Amino acid sequence: MLKNIRIVMVNTSHPGNIGAAARAMKNMELQSLYLVEPKVFPSAEATSRASGADDLLAHAVVCDTLDEALAECSLVIGASARLRSIAWPQLDPRQCAAQVMAECGKGPVALVFGREHAGLTNTELSRCHYLVNIPTNPEYPSLNIAAAIQVVAYEVRMWVEAHNDGAHKPAVEQVELATVDEVEQFYAHLETVMIESEFLDPAKPKHLMHRLRRLYNRARLEKQELNILRGILTAVQKRR
Amino acid sequence: MLKNIRIVMVNTSHPGNIGAAARAMKNMELQSLYLVEPKVFPSAEATSRASGADDLLAHAVVCDTLDEALAECSLVIGASARLRSIAWPQLDPRQCAAQVMAECGKGPVALVFGREHAGLTNTELSRCHYLVNIPTNPEYPSLNIAAAIQVVAYEVRMWVEAHNDGAHKPAVEQVELATVDEVEQFYAHLETVMIESEFLDPAKPKHLMHRLRRLYNRARLEKQELNILRGILTAVQKRR
Repeated sequence: MLKNIRIVMVNTSHPGNIGAAARAMKNMELQSLYLVEPKVFPSAEATSRASGADDLLAHAVVCDTLDEALAECSLVIGASARLRSIAWPQLDPRQCAAQVMAECGKGPVALVFGREHAGLTNTELSRCHYLVNIPTNPEYPSLNIAAAIQVVAYEVRMWVEAHNDGAHKPAVEQVELATVDEVEQFYAHLETVMIESEFLDPAKPKHLMHRLRRLYNRARLEKQELNILRGILTAVQKRR
Repeated sequence: MLKNIRIVMVNTSHPGNIGAAARAMKNMELQSLYLVEPKVFPSAEATSRASGADDLLAHAVVCDTLDEALAECSLVIGASARLRSIAWPQLDPRQCAAQVMAECGKGPVALVFGREHAGLTNTELSRCHYLVNIPTNPEYPSLNIAAAIQVVAYEVRMWVEAHNDGAHKPAVEQVELATVDEVEQFYAHLETVMIESEFLDPAKPKHLMHRLRRLYNRARLEKQELNILRGILTAVQKRR
């Protein structure tokens, strides 16, 4: 399904941004890059910034017009930094990912990113079903174009991970927690050492053991950690 | 509160990445940039890539060591591309933002990003309470460092937007957490006692300190708990 997600860059000035966008896409497992009238392409700078994602550049489709890049797409979402005078349905990147994932199983969908300084024209925006706005600092709202693609692609990835139960989830940690009785033995040992070292006066225990229990219970001691702590207590006792 | 969020870049090679990171930060209304041993800084390339965010570069704090950059922080989260052999609590960027926003009202918190190719060392990772992993294409997982900062900062912004009605104030816990430098002093003290008691052989340290750091970082030591632990160590030393 991710193959159906097209990233369309319109009239990009700086080839470095095309390379950085390719890297961001591949990081998130997107692969379909369309370039509408790029100022400079191909370019050594694009390849350099793409790092290991130069295969996306090699397969990028260069088009003369936006309509050409949108051919066969049933959903088009345009990136826009500001609200336009004519109200248009707006999505944040998370909603955008949900919309894209709901439709990319049926056929190609396009995410369109405009020029570095001027964004998309009103004519281009009118090709879009939705606009996606990245929330920003109102006093400094303009993201680098590759950074914007990174954010939108990241939300697609987050959607995939959330709905992917099973497949590439991080492996569950194989740690073995200490049992309650093992932890109790540790507390008894700790208390003994505190008394022997005169840190704890059994006649005036205050809340010391209570506080230490709270600390170690919060941490959920693992068996191996408990063994280390017991080892330290034993070593301290032997040396006295 | 966003002023308390420190972005810490460790040993960055390419000044362009520092500039791009500053821009990404300012877009999301973050402003506190710490640079640990940058290879080249200041630099015209950083300023150029920062676009209008050169004020962040002008105020960036350049440090000799990571510990210096983490001073006064009670929460440290490190960016890591992969799961480490020794399990460490992992967050995705959204969970990371929630954790950061829950704590940045109390004091400075740090988000730490490593070298372009090598990331953070195990020693640096052991300074962290959590690791943040950006979900990626398993076959091409390495994001550009500024792109990674963009994603993490974006999630902070999304959190702010979602919680912005009224006085965006997460409930502040009434406990006072120990700062990173206080916890480092505790680790040093603990290590000394382990060596004195011959539990730890400095010639063969294995992963002992690493494991203990993981335990206590997970627990997020409170000031009062830290004082108790230091008291126990001191008592044990006096009695010998």
